[in-house]
Amino acid sequence: MADITLGELAVRYGLTLRGDPARRIRHVSTLAGSGPDSIAFLANPRLTQALQGCRAGAVILHPDLEASSPVDCLLSRNPHAVFARIAAELYPAMPVAPGVHPSAVIEPGAVVDATAHIGAQCFIGAGAKIGARVQLGPGCIVAAGAELAEDVRLVARVTVLERVQIGARSILHPGAVIGAEGFGYAPEGERWIAVPQVGTVRIGADVEIGANTTVDRGAIEDTVICEGVKIDNLVQIGHNCTIGAHTAIAGCAGLAGSSHLGARCRVGGGVGIAGHLRICDDVTLTGFTLVVGDIREPGVYSGGIPAEPAADWRRIVGRLKRIDGLARRVGELERQAAEGGGERT
Amino acid sequence: MADITLGELAVRYGLTLRGDPARRIRHVSTLAGSGPDSIAFLANPRLTQALQGCRAGAVILHPDLEASSPVDCLLSRNPHAVFARIAAELYPAMPVAPGVHPSAVIEPGAVVDATAHIGAQCFIGAGAKIGARVQLGPGCIVAAGAELAEDVRLVARVTVLERVQIGARSILHPGAVIGAEGFGYAPEGERWIAVPQVGTVRIGADVEIGANTTVDRGAIEDTVICEGVKIDNLVQIGHNCTIGAHTAIAGCAGLAGSSHLGARCRVGGGVGIAGHLRICDDVTLTGFTLVVGDIREPGVYSGGIPAEPAADWRRIVGRLKRIDGLARRVGELERQAAEGGGERT
Amino acid sequence: MADITLGELAVRYGLTLRGDPARRIRHVSTLAGSGPDSIAFLANPRLTQALQGCRAGAVILHPDLEASSPVDCLLSRNPHAVFARIAAELYPAMPVAPGVHPSAVIEPGAVVDATAHIGAQCFIGAGAKIGARVQLGPGCIVAAGAELAEDVRLVARVTVLERVQIGARSILHPGAVIGAEGFGYAPEGERWIAVPQVGTVRIGADVEIGANTTVDRGAIEDTVICEGVKIDNLVQIGHNCTIGAHTAIAGCAGLAGSSHLGARCRVGGGVGIAGHLRICDDVTLTGFTLVVGDIREPGVYSGGIPAEPAADWRRIVGRLKRIDGLARRVGELERQAAEGGGERT
Repeated sequence: MADITLGELAVRYGLTLRGDPARRIRHVSTLAGSGPDSIAFLANPRLTQALQGCRAGAVILHPDLEASSPVDCLLSRNPHAVFARIAAELYPAMPVAPGVHPSAVIEPGAVVDATAHIGAQCFIGAGAKIGARVQLGPGCIVAAGAELAEDVRLVARVTVLERVQIGARSILHPGAVIGAEGFGYAPEGERWIAVPQVGTVRIGADVEIGANTTVDRGAIEDTVICEGVKIDNLVQIGHNCTIGAHTAIAGCAGLAGSSHLGARCRVGGGVGIAGHLRICDDVTLTGFTLVVGDIREPGVYSGGIPAEPAADWRRIVGRLKRIDGLARRVGELERQAAEGGGERT
Repeated sequence: MADITLGELAVRYGLTLRGDPARRIRHVSTLAGSGPDSIAFLANPRLTQALQGCRAGAVILHPDLEASSPVDCLLSRNPHAVFARIAAELYPAMPVAPGVHPSAVIEPGAVVDATAHIGAQCFIGAGAKIGARVQLGPGCIVAAGAELAEDVRLVARVTVLERVQIGARSILHPGAVIGAEGFGYAPEGERWIAVPQVGTVRIGADVEIGANTTVDRGAIEDTVICEGVKIDNLVQIGHNCTIGAHTAIAGCAGLAGSSHLGARCRVGGGVGIAGHLRICDDVTLTGFTLVVGDIREPGVYSGGIPAEPAADWRRIVGRLKRIDGLARRVGELERQAAEGGGERT
Repeated sequence: MADITLGELAVRYGLTLRGDPARRIRHVSTLAGSGPDSIAFLANPRLTQALQGCRAGAVILHPDLEASSPVDCLLSRNPHAVFARIAAELYPAMPVAPGVHPSAVIEPGAVVDATAHIGAQCFIGAGAKIGARVQLGPGCIVAAGAELAEDVRLVARVTVLERVQIGARSILHPGAVIGAEGFGYAPEGERWIAVPQVGTVRIGADVEIGANTTVDRGAIEDTVICEGVKIDNLVQIGHNCTIGAHTAIAGCAGLAGSSHLGARCRVGGGVGIAGHLRICDDVTLTGFTLVVGDIREPGVYSGGIPAEPAADWRRIVGRLKRIDGLARRVGELERQAAEGGGERT
């Protein structure tokens, strides 16, 4: 395990240190802490209270909160990002030896960089290209013609289908399926005729895709996920969607086909986006929101309704279902009031 | 790559051709197109505008729209289905050699047709039956006693559990799990006792099941998916559901146990269907709809609420939560008006 | 197949028998039944009607309903639990031979109990510990340092990542991914910096986790799932959640990070729980409910709105979107009524 002094951390990240520069930091912790060699962070000023009982060795926080810290502190305007970087130093990724596990199957014509690590029981199809320092954990499939750029990491049991392209440093978590055939059918009488899905998926650099998430290949053109996009677990991205750079999508969200989500969007958990829509840059959709029309203005949009005790909710839903009648009754009262006023005049 | 003239296509599909019968078509494209050897289609008359900039070599469209096409065209009353068929010709499935990959594990007592393709690292359990021309991509599991009819295709890493039956030509996408034990527990005090799930799953012919979709085995009798059903990615089908022929279910939808969905239904993305319900044939459920009671009439049903700017939505939800009081206030006004009217008389 | 007489069952489970103690029971059935050697159960008194056509050989039901049964019956105050136990006797799990399949890969330093069964194409990482009588179906991954207690069963293709701990007798279904890195990023300018997820997942005894469900590892501390918890398919459990003992979570539900769900809760299908919440013990959330605040009182909470015919629903939603105006109009009418009343005086 790594071991860094507070003084080294302050120098390395250009931070003001208040406290003992010789304090050795060996692990991260919550504010509740776990001893003098731990470091925590406080990003949310509303949690300042929690500093009272802080038992971490040191804490990273905003300069404005320095006075509230009972322990050594490093001051940063972005404590969470600094914490992320320090944690990455304290917990370096295990070095992975280059080479191909003997149980892996590499089809003829695949090109695997000599610095890549191909884990146990991986399958790499004909014509696939595996770049420098790529890591494939156990049980990954990279189908024919797919291309993984340098430093891509497939954690374990990831499925990358034909001709999919994945940009440098992207990380795919277990169970992710990239490039399955999209849900494209033409109705003919009562049957559905499958429409060949001849596009593929292009994923940019520094993308992260969660466990059991699915990204379908394009029907004609490609499904495109731009650089820096982060997608959580169990998300569905339909064929021919495009997702702009640095957008983040939380778990259980779903995008139907051919929708275009802008850059720097934040999509909450369980959100649904219908097909063939355009959502502009810098849109936040809170959890459980349903989008069925274009969104042309940046901002926050919502659609979920928070829970109520069941009996109250049943009454509310009953009223809601009769809201049309209620509105008509109000209209009638207004009419009567207007007439009544008239009569009274 | 295949290469067909427009004239051949017109003859083969019985279509009227307006344009050059000798034009060679080599690939499909969108209307925006990509050169004189591409073919596109226009199925939605509201997109007729898009024909203006059409740069495809030819377009398939409805006879009524012929005059709007600036390029060669094939006329069909169902352009999307014709396009699907032509695309299938232009992009024929890669021929797959029969045989069993040396890394596959076939347990004693499994019967694998000599024309089947069993890919790398597949597992086939005792007593399983693999029919003629079946294709198993890499990493598929077919457990003991399961049966795949002729021409079934498991794309890659599909899990088919004990005794599941899959009909001819059905296609299962990566990560699909068919026949896991259903969520069946009996409460006993504060604990849950697992109820053995002794049924299985029977899937008809020409069914398609999406990536990471799960179909549970029946508790006592079987879960049944009829012929021609198409299920998208990340869909959950609970134990003992039955799904009628040619029904289509979009991504992220979920059916709880023992519900019966009719034939030719269309289930939108993120729809939820509670347990022990009957939904008749020819029902369309738009995205995000929740069904908690039987549906006995064909038609379109909805329940999702489109997004609003967050501040507006908060106000709407606040009002909704007080709708009971609002309705009572209206009732009071009506009472006053009736009395007031009486007083005024 | 097992074969037990009604008399033996009555003795074994301490039940009153009305009927032929020598009747041999060979399989379970629904009430609709399948012959004289089948046993069914009736747990829901509202379905008493269904006893009329009962063609099972015997039925397990509540003593109060004895008179309604036209066939032999076993009387129990918890017919479903008794049925579960009898079914488990009639359909005993196939005995699984201890040993490691030759195609499995066991890294040096892993400790596999001699009584464990490691199926085809499993991967067990360095330092993992596999307890007595553990069963790993084909294609399971148990990463470095993970620990499975005695009698754990990974059905097939389960992914258990680094250092995850799983308690005795727990069952994980195909495609489940336990211990993927949580969705933790710190924003920095327009980019996201990944925060190392250094916690793991601790799962108690007698837990069941459904197909393609994902449980993320903790960011700093661990994600914790207590004993007896049952989780259905396609559920997402975010990093650092804790789930209390004997809670059941139905399919397609999602918990964002750091939420704490109490003991003995029942979470319906498609429910969403936002992050950093506390939900007390004994809470039931009906299907499709969204929770965005703490719940401090046991009880039933709801938030889903049942489907309506689409035309009606569009009108309802239109009215709902204008509910703020409606409420203001009612306020105006009330003002007028108060004034009008004044005028009239």
